[in-house]
Amino acid sequence: MADNNEIPEDANEHCPGPQSDSAGKSDACAGCPNQEVCATAPKGPDPDLVAIAERMATVRHKILVLSGKGGVGKSTFSAQLSFALAGMDHQVGLLDIDICGPSIPKMLGLEGQDIHQSNLGWSPVYVESNLGVMSIGFMLPNPDEAVIWRGPRKNGIIKQFLKDVYWGELDYLVVDAPPGTSDEHISIVQFLQATGIDGAIIVTTPQEVSLIDVRKEVSFCKKVGIPVLGVVENMSGLRQPLADIKFMKVTETGEETDMTEWAMKYMRENAPEMLNLIAGTEVFDSSKGGAAKMCMDMGVPFLGKVPMDPQLCKAAEEGRSCFTDQKCGASAPALKRIIEKLVADHTVSGTMMDDGA
Amino acid sequence: MADNNEIPEDANEHCPGPQSDSAGKSDACAGCPNQEVCATAPKGPDPDLVAIAERMATVRHKILVLSGKGGVGKSTFSAQLSFALAGMDHQVGLLDIDICGPSIPKMLGLEGQDIHQSNLGWSPVYVESNLGVMSIGFMLPNPDEAVIWRGPRKNGIIKQFLKDVYWGELDYLVVDAPPGTSDEHISIVQFLQATGIDGAIIVTTPQEVSLIDVRKEVSFCKKVGIPVLGVVENMSGLRQPLADIKFMKVTETGEETDMTEWAMKYMRENAPEMLNLIAGTEVFDSSKGGAAKMCMDMGVPFLGKVPMDPQLCKAAEEGRSCFTDQKCGASAPALKRIIEKLVADHTVSGTMMDDGA
Repeated sequence: MADNNEIPEDANEHCPGPQSDSAGKSDACAGCPNQEVCATAPKGPDPDLVAIAERMATVRHKILVLSGKGGVGKSTFSAQLSFALAGMDHQVGLLDIDICGPSIPKMLGLEGQDIHQSNLGWSPVYVESNLGVMSIGFMLPNPDEAVIWRGPRKNGIIKQFLKDVYWGELDYLVVDAPPGTSDEHISIVQFLQATGIDGAIIVTTPQEVSLIDVRKEVSFCKKVGIPVLGVVENMSGLRQPLADIKFMKVTETGEETDMTEWAMKYMRENAPEMLNLIAGTEVFDSSKGGAAKMCMDMGVPFLGKVPMDPQLCKAAEEGRSCFTDQKCGASAPALKRIIEKLVADHTVSGTMMDDGA
Repeated sequence: MADNNEIPEDANEHCPGPQSDSAGKSDACAGCPNQEVCATAPKGPDPDLVAIAERMATVRHKILVLSGKGGVGKSTFSAQLSFALAGMDHQVGLLDIDICGPSIPKMLGLEGQDIHQSNLGWSPVYVESNLGVMSIGFMLPNPDEAVIWRGPRKNGIIKQFLKDVYWGELDYLVVDAPPGTSDEHISIVQFLQATGIDGAIIVTTPQEVSLIDVRKEVSFCKKVGIPVLGVVENMSGLRQPLADIKFMKVTETGEETDMTEWAMKYMRENAPEMLNLIAGTEVFDSSKGGAAKMCMDMGVPFLGKVPMDPQLCKAAEEGRSCFTDQKCGASAPALKRIIEKLVADHTVSGTMMDDGA
């Protein structure tokens, strides 16, 4: 007879359900260890979830950006995805739920900014009029100070971000999560699920040690019922014009002598065609097939590879879009293809249908 | 009159302390909201902390390996530190407390191994007779399955690792933590602090986006009273023999044509001296001074730089020591210097004094 599935394991046999009006008062409750709690607990849906649903009513698409392992470029991707969507004239919100290590303020060029409160709620910090950002990074009096918080406190602030931030009308809410499958991930799904999550983009690097954790992340999405929009293989080999490389002699003890100037002159004189080439290095071993094979094995879409590009790292450091910067030649076209594919795929399938920006 | 400082905020004025024998029974307790809990709660120190202290009595040095951000090579460093200490004939234990993303089994070449139980406790998995490893990775029936655990459950397994693992006599227990400053970090410090922690090594990459989080990690160590043994700057520029590099032409749309064979022949014929050089790239921007400057600013020791080295990544992927592998020419000497410095510094200061291995 329960009207929800949250019946405690030690409940009596004909438990009416702890949310029921007769909870703790029905005949079946006599002697149940939960009787008192059930009789006195507030009934009905969690009022916070109602408040979240109201906030999210003006948000058309919600996308989570996840990774199994840290340091794979998830926040860089979230930042550039947000820049790109805003560049397509969408109204975009970027929510950073990495509570202990927020990188988003820096990657959007918003370090040192504060959030403001109005009678509508907490106001995001705006990069441009159509790109708003929220992060705990905006709330810390001292950016060097550690946020030493256990799970429940992290969950509390995530709930507040969803409940109290006034985003206004949004085409896309991009949520940048920390690595892993713990409190932040369980909470964001729990808080947003009823409002509809379009799906998750999972960012990885090509090596097996990273893919182990990505498989766990895919398994997480399947368990909690979040569609995997696709997997991005980041840092997929370094690509650099030969002219940007330093050359050196290294002794056995590790002392370096810079030979760059000599080498450039030597090449110009003897092997000038070298200078038109791109140098490539597979920094991370992808000999086992990388993310593309993992996606095939696990039946999730592969969105593409983004090469490791020092210029992209620099854009992230400086809080710039890589799409408006001519220097990100190795990474920007790859990122652009992935984001266009993502938007197009979901226009076709309807889940991210865009009926006018 | 309280004999400890854990008096609840809402306690009565002359609270005897919840650990006191008269807790809940003294006259002062009449009407206190905690009276019943205090009267019935078990007294004395947490029996789990006593059990942990007993286990740790045979461990001489405990070192935490931390990072602010993920993916900076923390687990790779922990693995190679353990290999190195074992190579110096120390008895070494490596404990992985990254519950949601354990990489240590793979990085030690122990994937697919199980832990065994004896009447002494859980037995670590041994790489060699003097290098034992414990990780949740050994306990998962399916390595692809996500460990979707909130904080309290993660804290529970960490406590069990400390309480129930039979390490025997150890010179060093190396603890590899996940990135951040949350449940796992608070718990490991809380559980181990009374037994004496030598200190923490913090691993980072050179760019500011990573250093932001390292500052938080240093602040964490200061707040909880753990000495910072030093900071390692990992992935500090890529170093590779020119002969290992691939050369390509890339069109504007990102299509690549492999020119490596042509380029090698062209260089051999026209510019053979190029082939003796090392190519270097600063993948991550360290123009703001990197970890060395951060250490100076924050008054913590800088241990050194380890270059980004695809061969080190490969050794980690394959679960090998980089010190027994001739290929890790760029990274192994740097790592070795750092580890020797670490051991030497602490032999001098006495905190890690080694009176015979």
